[in-house]
Amino acid sequence: MQAADQKAALDAKFTPRFSQPATFLRAPLTSNLDDVDIALIGIPYDLGSGNRAGPRHGPAQVREMSRLIRRVNGSTGVAPFDLARIADIGDAPVNPFMIKESIDDIEAFVAAVLDRGISPVSVGGDHTITLPLLRAIGKKRGPVGVIHFDSHSDCADDFYGSKLNNATMYTRLLEGGFVDPKRVIQVGIRGTYFSAGDLDFARSHGMRVITMDEFEELGREGVVSEIKRVVGSGETYFTFDVDGLDPTLCPGTGAPEPGGFSMRDVQVILRKLADVNLIGGDVVEVSPPLDPQGHTAVNAANVLFELVCLLAQRRARKGSKA
Amino acid sequence: MQAADQKAALDAKFTPRFSQPATFLRAPLTSNLDDVDIALIGIPYDLGSGNRAGPRHGPAQVREMSRLIRRVNGSTGVAPFDLARIADIGDAPVNPFMIKESIDDIEAFVAAVLDRGISPVSVGGDHTITLPLLRAIGKKRGPVGVIHFDSHSDCADDFYGSKLNNATMYTRLLEGGFVDPKRVIQVGIRGTYFSAGDLDFARSHGMRVITMDEFEELGREGVVSEIKRVVGSGETYFTFDVDGLDPTLCPGTGAPEPGGFSMRDVQVILRKLADVNLIGGDVVEVSPPLDPQGHTAVNAANVLFELVCLLAQRRARKGSKA
Amino acid sequence: MQAADQKAALDAKFTPRFSQPATFLRAPLTSNLDDVDIALIGIPYDLGSGNRAGPRHGPAQVREMSRLIRRVNGSTGVAPFDLARIADIGDAPVNPFMIKESIDDIEAFVAAVLDRGISPVSVGGDHTITLPLLRAIGKKRGPVGVIHFDSHSDCADDFYGSKLNNATMYTRLLEGGFVDPKRVIQVGIRGTYFSAGDLDFARSHGMRVITMDEFEELGREGVVSEIKRVVGSGETYFTFDVDGLDPTLCPGTGAPEPGGFSMRDVQVILRKLADVNLIGGDVVEVSPPLDPQGHTAVNAANVLFELVCLLAQRRARKGSKA
Amino acid sequence: MQAADQKAALDAKFTPRFSQPATFLRAPLTSNLDDVDIALIGIPYDLGSGNRAGPRHGPAQVREMSRLIRRVNGSTGVAPFDLARIADIGDAPVNPFMIKESIDDIEAFVAAVLDRGISPVSVGGDHTITLPLLRAIGKKRGPVGVIHFDSHSDCADDFYGSKLNNATMYTRLLEGGFVDPKRVIQVGIRGTYFSAGDLDFARSHGMRVITMDEFEELGREGVVSEIKRVVGSGETYFTFDVDGLDPTLCPGTGAPEPGGFSMRDVQVILRKLADVNLIGGDVVEVSPPLDPQGHTAVNAANVLFELVCLLAQRRARKGSKA
Amino acid sequence: MQAADQKAALDAKFTPRFSQPATFLRAPLTSNLDDVDIALIGIPYDLGSGNRAGPRHGPAQVREMSRLIRRVNGSTGVAPFDLARIADIGDAPVNPFMIKESIDDIEAFVAAVLDRGISPVSVGGDHTITLPLLRAIGKKRGPVGVIHFDSHSDCADDFYGSKLNNATMYTRLLEGGFVDPKRVIQVGIRGTYFSAGDLDFARSHGMRVITMDEFEELGREGVVSEIKRVVGSGETYFTFDVDGLDPTLCPGTGAPEPGGFSMRDVQVILRKLADVNLIGGDVVEVSPPLDPQGHTAVNAANVLFELVCLLAQRRARKGSKA
Amino acid sequence: MQAADQKAALDAKFTPRFSQPATFLRAPLTSNLDDVDIALIGIPYDLGSGNRAGPRHGPAQVREMSRLIRRVNGSTGVAPFDLARIADIGDAPVNPFMIKESIDDIEAFVAAVLDRGISPVSVGGDHTITLPLLRAIGKKRGPVGVIHFDSHSDCADDFYGSKLNNATMYTRLLEGGFVDPKRVIQVGIRGTYFSAGDLDFARSHGMRVITMDEFEELGREGVVSEIKRVVGSGETYFTFDVDGLDPTLCPGTGAPEPGGFSMRDVQVILRKLADVNLIGGDVVEVSPPLDPQGHTAVNAANVLFELVCLLAQRRARKGSKA
Repeated sequence: MQAADQKAALDAKFTPRFSQPATFLRAPLTSNLDDVDIALIGIPYDLGSGNRAGPRHGPAQVREMSRLIRRVNGSTGVAPFDLARIADIGDAPVNPFMIKESIDDIEAFVAAVLDRGISPVSVGGDHTITLPLLRAIGKKRGPVGVIHFDSHSDCADDFYGSKLNNATMYTRLLEGGFVDPKRVIQVGIRGTYFSAGDLDFARSHGMRVITMDEFEELGREGVVSEIKRVVGSGETYFTFDVDGLDPTLCPGTGAPEPGGFSMRDVQVILRKLADVNLIGGDVVEVSPPLDPQGHTAVNAANVLFELVCLLAQRRARKGSKA
Repeated sequence: MQAADQKAALDAKFTPRFSQPATFLRAPLTSNLDDVDIALIGIPYDLGSGNRAGPRHGPAQVREMSRLIRRVNGSTGVAPFDLARIADIGDAPVNPFMIKESIDDIEAFVAAVLDRGISPVSVGGDHTITLPLLRAIGKKRGPVGVIHFDSHSDCADDFYGSKLNNATMYTRLLEGGFVDPKRVIQVGIRGTYFSAGDLDFARSHGMRVITMDEFEELGREGVVSEIKRVVGSGETYFTFDVDGLDPTLCPGTGAPEPGGFSMRDVQVILRKLADVNLIGGDVVEVSPPLDPQGHTAVNAANVLFELVCLLAQRRARKGSKA
Repeated sequence: MQAADQKAALDAKFTPRFSQPATFLRAPLTSNLDDVDIALIGIPYDLGSGNRAGPRHGPAQVREMSRLIRRVNGSTGVAPFDLARIADIGDAPVNPFMIKESIDDIEAFVAAVLDRGISPVSVGGDHTITLPLLRAIGKKRGPVGVIHFDSHSDCADDFYGSKLNNATMYTRLLEGGFVDPKRVIQVGIRGTYFSAGDLDFARSHGMRVITMDEFEELGREGVVSEIKRVVGSGETYFTFDVDGLDPTLCPGTGAPEPGGFSMRDVQVILRKLADVNLIGGDVVEVSPPLDPQGHTAVNAANVLFELVCLLAQRRARKGSKA
Repeated sequence: MQAADQKAALDAKFTPRFSQPATFLRAPLTSNLDDVDIALIGIPYDLGSGNRAGPRHGPAQVREMSRLIRRVNGSTGVAPFDLARIADIGDAPVNPFMIKESIDDIEAFVAAVLDRGISPVSVGGDHTITLPLLRAIGKKRGPVGVIHFDSHSDCADDFYGSKLNNATMYTRLLEGGFVDPKRVIQVGIRGTYFSAGDLDFARSHGMRVITMDEFEELGREGVVSEIKRVVGSGETYFTFDVDGLDPTLCPGTGAPEPGGFSMRDVQVILRKLADVNLIGGDVVEVSPPLDPQGHTAVNAANVLFELVCLLAQRRARKGSKA
Repeated sequence: MQAADQKAALDAKFTPRFSQPATFLRAPLTSNLDDVDIALIGIPYDLGSGNRAGPRHGPAQVREMSRLIRRVNGSTGVAPFDLARIADIGDAPVNPFMIKESIDDIEAFVAAVLDRGISPVSVGGDHTITLPLLRAIGKKRGPVGVIHFDSHSDCADDFYGSKLNNATMYTRLLEGGFVDPKRVIQVGIRGTYFSAGDLDFARSHGMRVITMDEFEELGREGVVSEIKRVVGSGETYFTFDVDGLDPTLCPGTGAPEPGGFSMRDVQVILRKLADVNLIGGDVVEVSPPLDPQGHTAVNAANVLFELVCLLAQRRARKGSKA
Repeated sequence: MQAADQKAALDAKFTPRFSQPATFLRAPLTSNLDDVDIALIGIPYDLGSGNRAGPRHGPAQVREMSRLIRRVNGSTGVAPFDLARIADIGDAPVNPFMIKESIDDIEAFVAAVLDRGISPVSVGGDHTITLPLLRAIGKKRGPVGVIHFDSHSDCADDFYGSKLNNATMYTRLLEGGFVDPKRVIQVGIRGTYFSAGDLDFARSHGMRVITMDEFEELGREGVVSEIKRVVGSGETYFTFDVDGLDPTLCPGTGAPEPGGFSMRDVQVILRKLADVNLIGGDVVEVSPPLDPQGHTAVNAANVLFELVCLLAQRRARKGSKA
């Protein structure tokens, strides 16, 4: 059995999955960024939830349930820990009472990761966290593309008078020029809307919105094509809101919308994105109090693993830091 | 934020979903039927459950979970509260010990609603409640058609010697001439049967039974066509037993039958029934004690919303009361 | 069976507990304050939780579980609905993103209640809400006494740099002169402390702190005597943090501290406070996501009922508004 | 390991507690009454629940959780299976739709047991079942005494117009002369009352009512004395409603009343009743849907075991059938 | 209502599903093998779980949830209890501390069943139990074919140095020549792998492995064809690991792998295997502590029923014992 | 906010309790024993559970729930992290299939800790783990005294033929001379026994057994006196089986026995043992699958904290390593 503070990821072949403290994907835990290619980051922030709360506990539960993940992607054969140096670097600083300060602190934390050429992969927290993440990235590398799985378009200007929350991310990002709307694709949008114009912002700025209705027409292959067409070869970020999944797959999330995609949909699509120029990503909106047994977190951990596989592949292909 | 006893439905844009007492779809609560087009009615009756109990708590939990519903149907664009005056008129009277009295009381309660030209939309309760609902309708308007989603055909003559329960609805309805069996279509029938002849009654009376096996052959479009063909342009009632859904979608129901339809199936089919001449409907068999976190009720609330959209559309189209 | 929007409280003798939409203690729901003596108020605010979140959902669940409460206090014989006009006036306005605004809005909402001479009884929400409640009361009536059941002393100056949260209530209240520290008594304090000086503030300001250790020495009778001695005959507020209870009684709360009091302790003590000059109170820190079956809320509803009994008794005794 | 259809009770020393189908206390299952002294009977009836439903599933869950019970009472040293022939004789017949028929069938089933001189020990089901049980006993042996643990007095005349439910048991029993009210003692009564006169019936008929308030004054020893004084040496029945326990001990029951007794209270009192002339008893109101993990049923199974110990002792002492 | 120790299976038409002690599919419970064609066996063994534990409680919960199963297969019309004599013969002996002894005891128990020409159908327990089951069969009848639904290939040589656990079944079976690898087909394989070579053993020995990726390409019909092609007309065993299902369908299992098959997939495939020469089978890896409400066990009970239908059909067709 | 791999324990004042990966009491995680006085060790072993399984997941959940613990003992004022260097050194090696090997590996792991003069504090795992812990201690320091809170005496010779499990610990320990039975005191023993002689072994070897019956006679003070008298001034180990608590406090344990002690009992007693010569201890039998929300683990974490306070005090007093 491997030591708890091992330098390599724990291997389920030698260290039973129920043993040793939990880290993301059983990666080594360190705040030393010297020898890291892909940094797994917890962001236990949920002050952007206008509805049901709880995602502040997301990183803890995704760490716990990612015990179940082994080392090799059964479909693609990718073994990410063999391709890249992957570490759990702990949680970004958050303040449970202060919105702006938390967002600034998260941005600074990620900026330091980016400065080292490390690919950041974060686990939320509510979807607000993608704002400081993409702000840090955009400031450093210019506007990027985004592959966005979600049931909600997150393009409000404000929500209850607040400009910083999990429904206004894109408005803030576009104001700052941190993402290129023409290279943003949203997949899985559905559910009841606040008003008839919920998708107007996204569409008027040239974002590609694939609703669940269109998802079914296109099929998985069609979606893969659209994703590749929209994001092209430029640098691209991946953000996965678990409520994009059907609620049976995310009982632990704040705003479930029936009629979502299956994990199989997600797996098949993601595994075909190996040639996208991914530079980081996140998985958000896991709310453990609503799902104490962690079924949602099992799915989140599996999506996290797929994302890490993609990033490890790309870095290996490039033979260089991002 | 809107007041708790507001006259308009609460709007998630202004009143957070977790605030104010829960009503169906956050509609205003009133027992005054004067300015109501569509009445949302709770029917907390479950003395017709021969198996696992609990649906008496259904209306309470569907009210709670319908907090999550916003105002516009994302797929169809229908905004029911803009098209019709919709109110939660509370619960029909039920007696927790008396079967016949309860059924008669429910019938009388609904009859008063119908007298005003209001479209009744009820939330059960076990499936027995459809009997007094359709009895009231049938008495007033003659035999109607029925679109019926369920895993069970509910066509027994008696059950443990009882004539009034959730397995005998159609036998009683046909005895009374309250529905036109030629205009009844059942969708989703499956599971283990009590005996080989479980579907004989339905078929011998000319009801159209689409088992899950046939459902898959027909596809959603085929089912939509069959529904339209069977019910035609006559007045039609819609009844949705949540156990028609796959058990992953209705953990809180008494008689789960694996292999059911997805919420997506239901959504796609319902959204294509805008031209059916709907006059009312119900959603039944939500059993909260079996699902304290309300996943079943989230689905029930979404089906309720789809049904209300259809009714609001039809009333708007007609420009008149039902 | 009574109508859903009845003017009198629902009576379990006639209206089954599982029927009709839930209000606090099944009181009538109204925003009209004209004929109200005791106002039951939901305050779904939890931006003051520095630890586990969720009390924003507290009012909804306490309403649900207070279905179980009947009309007469079995021990004291008090029948509050016969002594006072009691109504559920809905939720105070809160903003899920804005701390100061929410606190100000809550204060204004309660001030309007006080202006009518109505006794406010609130259900949280986190313990921060007692700040605007007592601020409104203190502004109108001068510094009051407080009977405070809790495991925590809530006397920090700031928490993570924030001045407004569920750990700093008293510091803010004393700064404003809204409570008279000499007439404050805290009962049940225990658990692990942030630092050795956690109780210094309370004690140095003359607040009476009865830790759980002293609680056991004094016994229930001794605590009753101390409460009466400390608050005297002046106007007194009652605040009940459910985490004062042993965690077996409040699985749904953010900061459980083993070794707390039983519901029997609370019942016996409260029932002996009929001659305290109570002017209002609250029950806080019920976090439904941590207790979906509502065991905590059942206890909260029972404490709420005891509190309402005391207020109804006092108002009846006085023969006048507060 | 012992066979599933063994003739002796399964012994945890040889047959792991998780193995073999569950029976009450792991007793042999048989419908043959020839060699039985004490019959364990399931009565899955809950049509008498005017509030939350579910006790129809009680016998199944108590069987499951009674796997945990070993063979010897650690405090008294009694080994019931060594003193008497104890069997699980299955469930009494019930009809899920018919109240009167079910009650009559239960009575007939128990009468047949009594005819053999067997002591019946039943597991409910709601508290209505004590009516047919005591009716059968009273018809055969004249009015008996009753030791009754409960939070409710169950002495209404009718409930929602019904004469046969879990709140009216004693009125029916006294009408029939099946119990001697002077030899009835109720312990643990408390909670909110429907009206001020809830205990009038019991007291006016000479039943001894020990409320929780008096329970605490008397102490366990005082209660034991009162029980013995009231029931004397005559034949006595024992009925245990699990809601007599504090709700922390019975999360799975329909009408929890905070401030109840602990299992320790119950154990200490029961173990001192070895010289009471017990002839049978029941444990009722376990509602598994409200407690899927069976904590309530563990307590119910332990009370069941204490009761069986008392009966086995008495029969051994008498050296004869009841 | 039928007696608890009836000789025929309980019929939901006459005996409510919530009544009488639970047995598999409500079959009669007996250890007498004289008049049995198909024996339902519980094997509460889980010492082979290298990850999350709990399947020792599987047989108890599958018995409980199989209350829900009625007598006729709605799709195929098969009524197994009319075609064969089916009994629950209790649990095989297991020792909660001894691996080898347990496996030998299970083998001996099943061998005695086989000696009578009875078809064994077992419910686990972890997947290790298929080793003694197939060892007993293989010893008696020579190497058999296997239809194996699972997400894992279970072909390791050892796991943490152990040769006998739920990951090494096939290695042991092939060493002993108990199965014919050319007649083994695995369906549903997916998830993260321990290493790149996880499927090498299966493939190098000629086992047919249909991963989830291939499953989707083939479709259900294609899988049916492949199953028939691979197992041919020889004697064939069926083993169903519930983690082959999507985790939404098996929340109660130790090693969930997102992206699995639906119950509908399983139903459609199984119902087309009536002409396979089945001689027995098992359903394994139901872990009740992870799913106290038994959703997994409902699915397991339904698969068990399908399997029993197939065996009853085949035996009826043959007109003889296996 | 502090870094995830900080050298000091996380302080709830600066680092929100929901943030950073979980360690025992938020202590720093390290396998370097150089600067450690008190080592917190997880032992995820549960092959000794003859009844319900699951404690292998105990260390993970106790780590999670010990997030809630702050830095100072409110009753005693002890701040353990100021008195001693405390670290979480990860989990001892265990093998999920091999009993003897696991026990030997645990012993070796602890022996290495003892070699450094470090006080070991372990979290199980089932109660078997106390065997290797005390074996390692006994080998190094001669027979020690034991303070043992439990509902079971754990003194069987074998269980299902096995000599190494959670029921036989003392027999093995006394065979090896690792504990001095005259200095062993068991507190809380109760429940049903396997046989009349369950306590014979303990008593015949001079162990002091305080059953729950005697516990109530003695009172907490009397128990404290007895503990001090029995263990005297010699080196003493503390072992806490959570099932010593009342089942309401340990829903997540394998063998609940109603009528146990409260957390308050435990706290009051432990806080008076500061002058006992403690050298280490453990908390065992937390079974997370039976309590996914972690109520049991909250109590276990609090007992763990009390134990660490006692050890830190003693080490500080001694001014030297153990």
